[in-house]
Amino acid sequence: MQDVLIVGIAGGTGSGKTTFAEAVMSMLRGKATLIAHDSYYRAHDDMPYEERAKLNYDHPDAYETDLLVRHLEELKAGRSIEVPTYDFSQHNRAPQTTTVMPSSVIVVEGILVLADARLRKLLDIKIFVDVDADLRILRRLKRDVEERGRSVQSVIDQYLATVRPMHEMFVEPSKRFADLIVPATFDNSVAQEVLITHIRQKA
Amino acid sequence: MQDVLIVGIAGGTGSGKTTFAEAVMSMLRGKATLIAHDSYYRAHDDMPYEERAKLNYDHPDAYETDLLVRHLEELKAGRSIEVPTYDFSQHNRAPQTTTVMPSSVIVVEGILVLADARLRKLLDIKIFVDVDADLRILRRLKRDVEERGRSVQSVIDQYLATVRPMHEMFVEPSKRFADLIVPATFDNSVAQEVLITHIRQKA
Repeated sequence: MQDVLIVGIAGGTGSGKTTFAEAVMSMLRGKATLIAHDSYYRAHDDMPYEERAKLNYDHPDAYETDLLVRHLEELKAGRSIEVPTYDFSQHNRAPQTTTVMPSSVIVVEGILVLADARLRKLLDIKIFVDVDADLRILRRLKRDVEERGRSVQSVIDQYLATVRPMHEMFVEPSKRFADLIVPATFDNSVAQEVLITHIRQKA
Repeated sequence: MQDVLIVGIAGGTGSGKTTFAEAVMSMLRGKATLIAHDSYYRAHDDMPYEERAKLNYDHPDAYETDLLVRHLEELKAGRSIEVPTYDFSQHNRAPQTTTVMPSSVIVVEGILVLADARLRKLLDIKIFVDVDADLRILRRLKRDVEERGRSVQSVIDQYLATVRPMHEMFVEPSKRFADLIVPATFDNSVAQEVLITHIRQKA
Protein backbone atom coordinates (compact mmCIF):
# COMPACT_ATOMS: atom_id res chain seq x y z
CA MET A 1 0.00 0.00 0.00
CA GLN A 2 1.61 3.22 -1.25
CA ASP A 3 1.40 6.39 0.81
CA VAL A 4 -0.94 8.49 -1.32
CA LEU A 5 -2.04 12.07 -0.64
CA ILE A 6 -5.46 12.89 -2.04
CA VAL A 7 -6.34 16.58 -2.34
CA GLY A 8 -9.92 17.65 -3.09
CA ILE A 9 -10.56 21.03 -4.72
CA ALA A 10 -14.18 22.18 -4.79
CA GLY A 11 -15.93 25.49 -5.49
CA GLY A 12 -18.85 26.85 -7.45
CA THR A 13 -19.03 27.33 -11.18
CA GLY A 14 -16.70 30.13 -12.28
CA SER A 15 -14.80 30.07 -8.98
CA GLY A 16 -11.53 29.30 -10.71
CA LYS A 17 -11.20 25.90 -9.01
CA THR A 18 -10.04 24.21 -12.23
CA THR A 19 -7.45 26.95 -12.84
CA PHE A 20 -6.36 26.60 -9.22
CA ALA A 21 -6.10 22.80 -9.55
CA GLU A 22 -4.12 23.16 -12.78
CA ALA A 23 -1.75 25.68 -11.20
CA VAL A 24 -1.15 23.23 -8.36
CA MET A 25 -0.56 20.46 -10.91
CA SER A 26 1.91 22.48 -12.98
CA MET A 27 3.87 23.39 -9.84
CA LEU A 28 4.14 19.66 -9.07
CA ARG A 29 5.65 19.03 -12.53
CA GLY A 30 4.06 15.74 -13.46
CA LYS A 31 4.34 14.19 -10.01
CA ALA A 32 0.60 14.32 -9.44
CA THR A 33 -2.56 13.14 -11.15
CA LEU A 34 -5.58 15.37 -11.77
CA ILE A 35 -9.00 13.74 -11.82
CA ALA A 36 -12.12 15.76 -12.72
CA HIS A 37 -15.36 14.69 -11.05
CA ASP A 38 -17.04 15.73 -14.35
CA SER A 39 -15.41 12.74 -16.07
CA TYR A 40 -17.72 10.63 -13.95
CA TYR A 41 -21.00 12.09 -15.24
CA ARG A 42 -23.37 9.14 -15.66
CA ALA A 43 -23.81 7.32 -18.97
CA HIS A 44 -27.32 7.73 -20.37
CA ASP A 45 -27.31 5.44 -23.41
CA ASP A 46 -30.93 4.61 -22.62
CA MET A 47 -32.16 8.15 -23.35
CA PRO A 48 -32.45 10.16 -26.55
CA TYR A 49 -30.34 13.31 -26.90
CA GLU A 50 -33.27 15.66 -26.22
CA GLU A 51 -33.98 13.99 -22.89
CA ARG A 52 -30.31 13.86 -21.89
CA ALA A 53 -29.97 17.59 -22.63
CA LYS A 54 -32.71 18.35 -20.12
CA LEU A 55 -31.12 16.52 -17.17
CA ASN A 56 -29.94 18.43 -14.10
CA TYR A 57 -26.16 18.22 -14.34
CA ASP A 58 -25.59 20.22 -11.17
CA HIS A 59 -27.25 17.68 -8.85
CA PRO A 60 -25.09 15.07 -7.07
CA ASP A 61 -27.13 12.29 -8.71
CA ALA A 62 -25.80 13.32 -12.14
CA TYR A 63 -22.44 11.84 -11.15
CA GLU A 64 -21.42 8.21 -10.83
CA THR A 65 -19.56 9.04 -7.63
CA ASP A 66 -19.54 5.36 -6.60
CA LEU A 67 -17.16 4.71 -9.46
CA LEU A 68 -14.91 7.65 -8.57
CA VAL A 69 -14.75 6.43 -4.95
CA ARG A 70 -13.81 2.92 -6.14
CA HIS A 71 -11.19 4.40 -8.47
CA LEU A 72 -9.58 6.46 -5.71
CA GLU A 73 -9.44 3.35 -3.54
CA GLU A 74 -7.80 1.47 -6.41
CA LEU A 75 -5.18 4.23 -6.85
CA LYS A 76 -4.51 4.22 -3.10
CA ALA A 77 -3.98 0.47 -3.33
CA GLY A 78 -1.40 1.05 -6.07
CA ARG A 79 -3.50 -0.14 -9.02
CA SER A 80 -4.18 1.80 -12.21
CA ILE A 81 -7.69 2.84 -13.22
CA GLU A 82 -9.62 3.58 -16.42
CA VAL A 83 -11.12 7.07 -16.12
CA PRO A 84 -14.26 7.44 -18.22
CA THR A 85 -14.54 10.19 -20.85
CA TYR A 86 -17.54 12.45 -20.85
CA ASP A 87 -18.70 13.96 -24.15
CA PHE A 88 -20.33 17.28 -23.22
CA SER A 89 -21.55 17.84 -26.81
CA GLN A 90 -23.51 14.55 -26.63
CA HIS A 91 -24.47 14.85 -22.95
CA ASN A 92 -23.26 11.29 -22.59
CA ARG A 93 -20.31 9.15 -21.64
CA ALA A 94 -18.00 8.39 -24.57
CA PRO A 95 -16.70 4.82 -25.12
CA GLN A 96 -12.99 5.60 -24.66
CA THR A 97 -11.26 5.68 -21.27
CA THR A 98 -7.97 7.11 -20.05
CA THR A 99 -5.58 4.90 -18.11
CA VAL A 100 -4.38 6.61 -14.96
CA MET A 101 -1.43 5.10 -13.11
CA PRO A 102 -1.08 5.36 -9.34
CA SER A 103 0.93 8.34 -8.11
CA SER A 104 1.82 9.78 -4.74
CA VAL A 105 -0.45 12.81 -5.12
CA ILE A 106 -3.96 12.81 -6.57
CA VAL A 107 -5.92 16.02 -7.05
CA VAL A 108 -9.70 15.60 -7.43
CA GLU A 109 -11.62 18.66 -8.60
CA GLY A 110 -15.30 19.42 -9.08
CA ILE A 111 -18.16 21.52 -7.74
CA LEU A 112 -19.44 18.69 -5.52
CA VAL A 113 -16.21 17.06 -4.39
CA LEU A 114 -16.81 18.10 -0.76
CA ALA A 115 -20.56 17.35 -0.86
CA ASP A 116 -20.20 13.56 -0.82
CA ALA A 117 -19.37 11.90 2.51
CA ARG A 118 -17.59 8.93 0.90
CA LEU A 119 -15.38 11.27 -1.14
CA ARG A 120 -14.64 13.46 1.87
CA LYS A 121 -13.48 10.42 3.81
CA LEU A 122 -10.87 9.72 1.12
CA LEU A 123 -9.56 13.29 0.96
CA ASP A 124 -6.48 14.14 3.02
CA ILE A 125 -6.79 17.87 2.30
CA LYS A 126 -10.12 19.50 1.48
CA ILE A 127 -9.94 22.85 -0.34
CA PHE A 128 -12.85 25.13 -1.26
CA VAL A 129 -12.19 27.94 -3.73
CA ASP A 130 -14.62 30.69 -2.77
CA VAL A 131 -15.59 33.61 -4.99
CA ASP A 132 -18.62 35.92 -4.83
CA ALA A 133 -21.59 34.68 -6.88
CA ASP A 134 -21.75 37.73 -9.17
CA LEU A 135 -18.13 37.31 -10.23
CA ARG A 136 -18.64 33.59 -10.75
CA ILE A 137 -21.65 34.00 -13.04
CA LEU A 138 -19.81 36.67 -15.05
CA ARG A 139 -16.93 34.25 -15.64
CA ARG A 140 -19.26 31.42 -16.56
CA LEU A 141 -21.27 33.64 -18.88
CA LYS A 142 -18.16 34.87 -20.69
CA ARG A 143 -16.81 31.34 -21.06
CA ASP A 144 -20.08 29.82 -22.28
CA VAL A 145 -20.82 32.64 -24.72
CA GLU A 146 -17.31 33.19 -26.07
CA GLU A 147 -15.89 29.67 -25.97
CA ARG A 148 -18.95 27.46 -26.24
CA GLY A 149 -21.10 29.53 -28.61
CA ARG A 150 -24.09 29.71 -26.26
CA SER A 151 -26.54 32.61 -26.18
CA VAL A 152 -26.66 34.91 -23.16
CA GLN A 153 -30.31 33.95 -22.58
CA SER A 154 -29.58 30.21 -22.56
CA VAL A 155 -26.80 30.70 -20.01
CA ILE A 156 -29.11 32.77 -17.81
CA ASP A 157 -31.92 30.21 -18.12
CA GLN A 158 -29.67 27.31 -17.12
CA TYR A 159 -28.11 29.31 -14.30
CA LEU A 160 -31.48 30.16 -12.76
CA ALA A 161 -33.06 26.75 -13.40
CA THR A 162 -30.36 24.42 -12.05
CA VAL A 163 -26.88 25.91 -11.51
CA ARG A 164 -27.88 28.46 -8.85
CA PRO A 165 -30.37 26.32 -6.88
CA MET A 166 -27.98 23.35 -6.82
CA HIS A 167 -25.16 25.66 -5.73
CA GLU A 168 -27.25 26.92 -2.82
CA MET A 169 -28.41 23.43 -1.92
CA PHE A 170 -25.22 21.36 -2.28
CA VAL A 171 -22.10 23.34 -3.18
CA GLU A 172 -22.28 26.24 -0.72
CA PRO A 173 -23.16 24.04 2.31
CA SER A 174 -20.20 21.76 1.51
CA LYS A 175 -17.83 24.68 2.19
CA ARG A 176 -18.01 23.97 5.90
CA PHE A 177 -16.27 20.63 5.36
CA ALA A 178 -13.22 22.34 3.89
CA ASP A 179 -9.90 22.33 5.75
CA LEU A 180 -8.96 25.51 3.94
CA ILE A 181 -11.00 28.04 2.00
CA VAL A 182 -9.19 29.98 -0.71
CA PRO A 183 -11.15 33.23 -0.88
CA ALA A 184 -9.00 35.23 -3.27
CA THR A 185 -11.15 36.56 -6.05
CA PHE A 186 -8.24 37.88 -8.06
CA ASP A 187 -4.98 36.54 -6.69
CA ASN A 188 -4.52 33.27 -4.85
CA SER A 189 -0.81 32.77 -5.38
CA VAL A 190 -0.02 32.67 -1.65
CA ALA A 191 -2.62 29.94 -1.10
CA GLN A 192 -1.14 27.97 -4.01
CA GLU A 193 2.35 28.34 -2.62
CA VAL A 194 1.39 27.28 0.90
CA LEU A 195 -0.46 24.25 -0.41
CA ILE A 196 2.30 23.30 -2.81
CA THR A 197 5.01 23.36 -0.15
CA HIS A 198 2.95 20.88 1.80
CA ILE A 199 2.07 18.61 -1.13
CA ARG A 200 5.65 18.58 -2.45
CA GLN A 201 6.79 16.84 0.70
CA LYS A 202 4.60 13.94 -0.35
CA ALA A 203 5.16 14.04 -4.12
CA MET B 1 18.15 42.65 6.09
CA GLN B 2 17.06 39.23 7.34
CA ASP B 3 14.52 37.22 5.38
CA VAL B 4 11.53 37.37 7.70
CA LEU B 5 8.18 35.67 7.19
CA ILE B 6 5.27 37.52 8.81
CA VAL B 7 2.05 35.56 9.25
CA GLY B 8 -1.17 37.33 10.22
CA ILE B 9 -3.92 35.40 11.99
CA ALA B 10 -7.27 37.16 12.29
CA GLY B 11 -10.81 36.08 13.17
CA GLY B 12 -13.71 37.19 15.33
CA THR B 13 -13.96 36.89 19.08
CA GLY B 14 -14.23 33.22 20.12
CA SER B 15 -13.07 31.99 16.71
CA GLY B 16 -10.14 30.16 18.21
CA LYS B 17 -7.58 32.35 16.42
CA THR B 18 -5.39 32.62 19.52
CA THR B 19 -5.50 28.84 20.05
CA PHE B 20 -4.70 28.39 16.35
CA ALA B 21 -1.79 30.86 16.57
CA GLU B 22 -0.49 29.13 19.71
CA ALA B 23 -0.71 25.70 18.05
CA VAL B 24 1.30 27.06 15.12
CA MET B 25 3.84 28.52 17.56
CA SER B 26 4.24 25.29 19.51
CA MET B 27 4.79 23.33 16.32
CA LEU B 28 7.58 25.77 15.43
CA ARG B 29 9.27 25.06 18.78
CA GLY B 30 10.58 28.48 19.71
CA LYS B 31 11.69 29.45 16.22
CA ALA B 32 8.94 32.03 15.87
CA THR B 33 7.67 35.07 17.74
CA LEU B 34 4.01 35.65 18.57
CA ILE B 35 2.78 39.23 18.80
CA ALA B 36 -0.78 40.03 19.92
CA HIS B 37 -2.37 43.12 18.42
CA ASP B 38 -4.09 43.53 21.82
CA SER B 39 -0.72 44.42 23.39
CA TYR B 40 -0.96 47.60 21.34
CA TYR B 41 -4.20 48.89 22.85
CA ARG B 42 -3.71 52.63 23.32
CA ALA B 43 -2.55 54.14 26.60
CA HIS B 44 -5.18 56.36 28.21
CA ASP B 45 -3.38 57.90 31.18
CA ASP B 46 -5.36 61.07 30.58
CA MET B 47 -8.70 59.43 31.46
CA PRO B 48 -10.15 58.17 34.76
CA TYR B 49 -10.91 54.43 35.03
CA GLU B 50 -14.69 54.92 34.61
CA GLU B 51 -14.18 56.66 31.28
CA ARG B 52 -11.59 54.15 30.06
CA ALA B 53 -13.95 51.28 30.89
CA LYS B 54 -16.56 52.75 28.54
CA LEU B 55 -14.32 52.97 25.46
CA ASN B 56 -15.05 50.84 22.40
CA TYR B 57 -12.25 48.28 22.41
CA ASP B 58 -13.45 46.56 19.27
CA HIS B 59 -12.94 49.57 16.99
CA PRO B 60 -9.67 49.90 15.02
CA ASP B 61 -9.02 53.28 16.70
CA ALA B 62 -8.62 51.52 20.06
CA TYR B 63 -5.28 50.17 18.85
CA GLU B 64 -1.99 51.99 18.36
CA THR B 65 -1.46 50.16 15.10
CA ASP B 66 1.11 52.73 13.95
CA LEU B 67 3.40 51.44 16.66
CA LEU B 68 2.82 47.78 15.72
CA VAL B 69 3.59 48.60 12.07
CA ARG B 70 6.81 50.37 13.10
CA HIS B 71 7.73 47.41 15.32
CA LEU B 72 7.22 44.88 12.53
CA GLU B 73 9.41 47.01 10.28
CA GLU B 74 12.07 47.08 12.99
CA LEU B 75 11.95 43.28 13.37
CA LYS B 76 12.21 42.89 9.58
CA ALA B 77 15.26 45.12 9.68
CA GLY B 78 16.80 42.81 12.28
CA ARG B 79 16.35 45.07 15.28
CA SER B 80 14.71 44.14 18.60
CA ILE B 81 11.58 45.90 19.83
CA GLU B 82 9.88 46.72 23.13
CA VAL B 83 6.32 45.33 23.03
CA PRO B 84 3.98 47.26 25.31
CA THR B 85 2.00 45.48 28.01
CA TYR B 86 -1.72 46.03 28.27
CA ASP B 87 -3.40 45.73 31.63
CA PHE B 88 -6.96 44.59 30.93
CA SER B 89 -7.99 44.99 34.56
CA GLN B 90 -7.04 48.69 34.43
CA HIS B 91 -8.13 49.26 30.80
CA ASN B 92 -4.77 50.90 30.28
CA ARG B 93 -1.22 50.31 29.13
CA ALA B 94 1.10 49.14 31.88
CA PRO B 95 4.56 50.71 32.28
CA GLN B 96 6.58 47.53 31.62
CA THR B 97 7.51 46.31 28.12
CA THR B 98 8.73 42.97 26.77
CA THR B 99 11.85 42.86 24.64
CA VAL B 100 11.29 40.85 21.48
CA MET B 101 14.33 39.84 19.42
CA PRO B 102 14.15 39.51 15.65
CA SER B 103 13.34 36.00 14.37
CA SER B 104 12.74 34.43 11.00
CA VAL B 105 9.01 33.93 11.58
CA ILE B 106 6.67 36.40 13.24
CA VAL B 107 3.02 35.54 13.91
CA VAL B 108 0.71 38.51 14.50
CA GLU B 109 -2.73 37.71 15.85
CA GLY B 110 -5.81 39.79 16.56
CA ILE B 111 -9.39 40.42 15.47
CA LEU B 112 -8.40 43.35 13.25
CA VAL B 113 -5.06 42.22 11.89
CA LEU B 114 -6.42 42.01 8.32
CA ALA B 115 -8.50 45.19 8.62
CA ASP B 116 -5.56 47.59 8.45
CA ALA B 117 -3.99 48.26 5.04
CA ARG B 118 -0.54 49.02 6.46
CA LEU B 119 -0.53 45.76 8.44
CA ARG B 120 -1.77 43.75 5.44
CA LYS B 121 1.09 45.11 3.36
CA LEU B 122 3.57 43.68 5.86
CA LEU B 123 1.96 40.23 6.04
CA ASP B 124 3.37 37.47 3.85
CA ILE B 125 0.54 35.07 4.69
CA LYS B 126 -2.90 36.29 5.73
CA ILE B 127 -5.05 33.77 7.63
CA PHE B 128 -8.64 34.25 8.78
CA VAL B 129 -10.05 31.74 11.28
CA ASP B 130 -13.77 31.57 10.52
CA VAL B 131 -16.38 30.18 12.87
CA ASP B 132 -20.15 30.73 12.95
CA ALA B 133 -21.23 33.66 15.14
CA ASP B 134 -23.38 31.57 17.50
CA LEU B 135 -20.48 29.26 18.34
CA ARG B 136 -18.16 32.22 18.78
CA ILE B 137 -20.41 34.02 21.27
CA LEU B 138 -20.91 30.79 23.23
CA ARG B 139 -17.14 30.43 23.59
CA ARG B 140 -16.69 34.05 24.57
CA LEU B 141 -19.54 33.87 27.08
CA LYS B 142 -18.13 30.74 28.70
CA ARG B 143 -14.64 32.26 28.91
CA ASP B 144 -15.76 35.63 30.27
CA VAL B 145 -18.14 34.12 32.83
CA GLU B 146 -15.99 31.18 33.98
CA GLU B 147 -12.49 32.63 33.70
CA ARG B 148 -13.03 36.35 34.09
CA GLY B 149 -15.86 36.40 36.63
CA ARG B 150 -18.21 38.47 34.45
CA SER B 151 -22.02 38.19 34.64
CA VAL B 152 -23.93 36.73 31.70
CA GLN B 153 -25.82 40.01 31.30
CA SER B 154 -22.66 42.12 31.14
CA VAL B 155 -21.21 39.84 28.44
CA ILE B 156 -24.45 40.10 26.44
CA ASP B 157 -24.57 43.90 26.85
CA GLN B 158 -20.99 44.35 25.64
CA TYR B 159 -21.50 41.91 22.80
CA LEU B 160 -24.55 43.75 21.47
CA ALA B 161 -23.19 47.24 22.12
CA THR B 162 -19.73 46.98 20.54
CA VAL B 163 -18.39 43.47 19.83
CA ARG B 164 -21.06 42.46 17.32
CA PRO B 165 -21.41 45.79 15.44
CA MET B 166 -17.62 46.17 15.15
CA HIS B 167 -17.35 42.55 13.97
CA GLU B 168 -19.89 43.24 11.21
CA MET B 169 -18.25 46.52 10.28
CA PHE B 170 -14.55 45.70 10.42
CA VAL B 171 -13.71 42.05 11.19
CA GLU B 172 -16.06 40.21 8.81
CA PRO B 173 -15.29 42.45 5.78
CA SER B 174 -11.54 41.92 6.34
CA LYS B 175 -12.02 38.21 5.62
CA ARG B 176 -11.83 38.91 1.90
CA PHE B 177 -8.23 40.00 2.24
CA ALA B 178 -7.22 36.57 3.58
CA ASP B 179 -5.01 34.25 1.54
CA LEU B 180 -6.52 31.32 3.37
CA ILE B 181 -9.62 30.97 5.49
CA VAL B 182 -9.58 28.26 8.14
CA PRO B 183 -13.27 27.37 8.49
CA ALA B 184 -13.03 24.42 10.83
CA THR B 185 -15.34 24.91 13.76
CA PHE B 186 -14.15 21.84 15.61
CA ASP B 187 -10.98 20.48 14.00
CA ASN B 188 -8.46 22.50 12.04
CA SER B 189 -5.48 20.20 12.34
CA VAL B 190 -5.08 19.80 8.56
CA ALA B 191 -4.99 23.58 8.10
CA GLN B 192 -2.39 23.82 10.88
CA GLU B 193 -0.28 21.11 9.31
CA VAL B 194 -0.39 22.64 5.82
CA LEU B 195 0.55 26.04 7.17
CA ILE B 196 3.29 24.67 9.39
CA THR B 197 4.99 22.77 6.57
CA HIS B 198 5.21 26.04 4.68
CA ILE B 199 6.40 28.15 7.60
CA ARG B 200 8.98 25.58 8.70
CA GLN B 201 10.85 26.05 5.46
CA LYS B 202 11.45 29.64 6.54
CA ALA B 203 12.00 29.08 10.26
